[in-house]
Amino acid sequence: MGSTRVKIAIDAMGGDNAPDEIVAGAVRAHAELDVDVVLVGDPHQVEAALKHHTHSSDIEIVPSEGTVEMEEEPLVGLRRKPKASINVAMDLVKKKQADAVVSAGHSGAAMAAALLKLGRLKGIDRPAIGAVLPTLIAGKPVLILDVGANVDCRPKFLEQFALMGTIYSQYVLGNSEPKVGLLNIGEEPNKGNELAIQTHELLSANPAIPFIGNAEGRDVLSGHFDVIVCDGFAGNVLLKFAEAVGEVALQILREELPRGLHGKAGVTFLRPNLKRIKQRMDHAEHGGGLLLGVDGVCIISHGSSQAPTIFNAARLAKDAIDNTVLDRIRSSYDPTVAVRADS
Amino acid sequence: MGSTRVKIAIDAMGGDNAPDEIVAGAVRAHAELDVDVVLVGDPHQVEAALKHHTHSSDIEIVPSEGTVEMEEEPLVGLRRKPKASINVAMDLVKKKQADAVVSAGHSGAAMAAALLKLGRLKGIDRPAIGAVLPTLIAGKPVLILDVGANVDCRPKFLEQFALMGTIYSQYVLGNSEPKVGLLNIGEEPNKGNELAIQTHELLSANPAIPFIGNAEGRDVLSGHFDVIVCDGFAGNVLLKFAEAVGEVALQILREELPRGLHGKAGVTFLRPNLKRIKQRMDHAEHGGGLLLGVDGVCIISHGSSQAPTIFNAARLAKDAIDNTVLDRIRSSYDPTVAVRADS
Repeated sequence: MGSTRVKIAIDAMGGDNAPDEIVAGAVRAHAELDVDVVLVGDPHQVEAALKHHTHSSDIEIVPSEGTVEMEEEPLVGLRRKPKASINVAMDLVKKKQADAVVSAGHSGAAMAAALLKLGRLKGIDRPAIGAVLPTLIAGKPVLILDVGANVDCRPKFLEQFALMGTIYSQYVLGNSEPKVGLLNIGEEPNKGNELAIQTHELLSANPAIPFIGNAEGRDVLSGHFDVIVCDGFAGNVLLKFAEAVGEVALQILREELPRGLHGKAGVTFLRPNLKRIKQRMDHAEHGGGLLLGVDGVCIISHGSSQAPTIFNAARLAKDAIDNTVLDRIRSSYDPTVAVRADS
Repeated sequence: MGSTRVKIAIDAMGGDNAPDEIVAGAVRAHAELDVDVVLVGDPHQVEAALKHHTHSSDIEIVPSEGTVEMEEEPLVGLRRKPKASINVAMDLVKKKQADAVVSAGHSGAAMAAALLKLGRLKGIDRPAIGAVLPTLIAGKPVLILDVGANVDCRPKFLEQFALMGTIYSQYVLGNSEPKVGLLNIGEEPNKGNELAIQTHELLSANPAIPFIGNAEGRDVLSGHFDVIVCDGFAGNVLLKFAEAVGEVALQILREELPRGLHGKAGVTFLRPNLKRIKQRMDHAEHGGGLLLGVDGVCIISHGSSQAPTIFNAARLAKDAIDNTVLDRIRSSYDPTVAVRADS
């Protein structure tokens, strides 16, 4: 699709707030980003949601029937419902009728659909979900992968995650010299479980990976690492804990700050600063996780996504496409693959 | 030692702030808790540290030579230095000259020394380190184990952790009906890695464990669980992340709250409330982790421990002894073991 406008298929039926919030985010992406948006979903529901918005008449709707429910086994659900929104959205990318998929639906189903319909990139055994968290250093986020696609990993999977993460950090997050770390329980190379010890050896020996050593739990948000690799079990636990802990901190603020007369007076003065604090601690800004390693751009957003998250997910998809992330991963495993010169 | 005063051996040479902060915490424990304290360390350094305190002349000093350094392999260090402070402290418990050990030194060395000198409790394959974190519900902490003793675990180890955690929660933390969770990446029994899926089965089938299901990362601090079991890799990552993230939140507060004239005025009003927020987010209050499953009471405190942490660690040790936690673990694996009636 080269120089034409990027086209993003958005699963309008996926997530707790579908379709209204999904559609609202899609409309904003269509208006503010230089992209075309395709809404995949039940036409009646999507049209009804679109009616709340002006300037939305040129947004394309591709009909689907049903969704894979949270309690369904992903593969069973995908097979039973070939016209489910996530299946239809992936088919659009497979048929080159769209460049990317954004979904806030069942993340296991999205991943399975991507694998089935798009397949893996050459050289990649297991795709991984990458998530971006803010760090102590403003404007310097950290990419963590895998955060849930692969609960049992082998060392070479983590090596592949590290390579994909390096490329993503360089070309989407704009780190000219990304620093890669391995999530572990100590600084020394011989620390950790079997997976970590063997992965440390692989990462140290791979000249394409700018590996700087182990990252302990306390280092994750320090800003010293741009990419941290781990198995999908540890990564998922960490991500969900991080999301919740911001909420915990905000709740403690809400409970403790306004106490007493002085407290109430102080809070009145601080209202704008408190708003900024909420923004810095809030993870909704990050759009979602990029599924790295499949042959297509897929953004898996949080089930609780609201319009701003979907908007940010669409921006993430556009960035990945504009910076030819897939070609760059391909070429790192196969030097004959050319990466587009204009990026 | 039955009805005599509880005697706690404190490793005066272990930790970043040894011996001064360790000795200060020990002196306070001696004065304020109904316990005897034994300081294990270099006599000259310990005596010099004791000189800063009044009423400390009746604190016993047991001499040791050297410590196991952070960069040393625990077993090698312990063997090379039989008179290292941690070895001497464990020997006191082994010889029934003390009831418990508190150390902020090399945690791997403390654990190895406990295993070598005291041995495991019958029925326990692997001892675990339990750590207590505050939750969203004030006064309702959660016990997480293992947080670092065993990086590669088998399902039955986690089952043993769950049983020991239940006893600890009941008899030390005072939960009459503790709720036990399994750290996992989803709510359903079939979610997670191999370890989690198999452990879920064991926990569900064990009538002695009040298992209520999987705990995701977002549930850890919710207060819905009193005990959460996991392998030492995930637990260590989570604990260190939790410790750091409180710091991150406080730093954002420090940076953002005083911005602008209104901010400065507001902060002046809020000083007492901000102090309370710092306390609620601060993890130093918790003393340290209890090493559960060895035949003795051992508290492993953070390397950065200062006097209040050591004081709290001594209180934790006293609570574990007063509530006969070891006998209760023993009796759960061997019904012929009697638990002291006075507890």
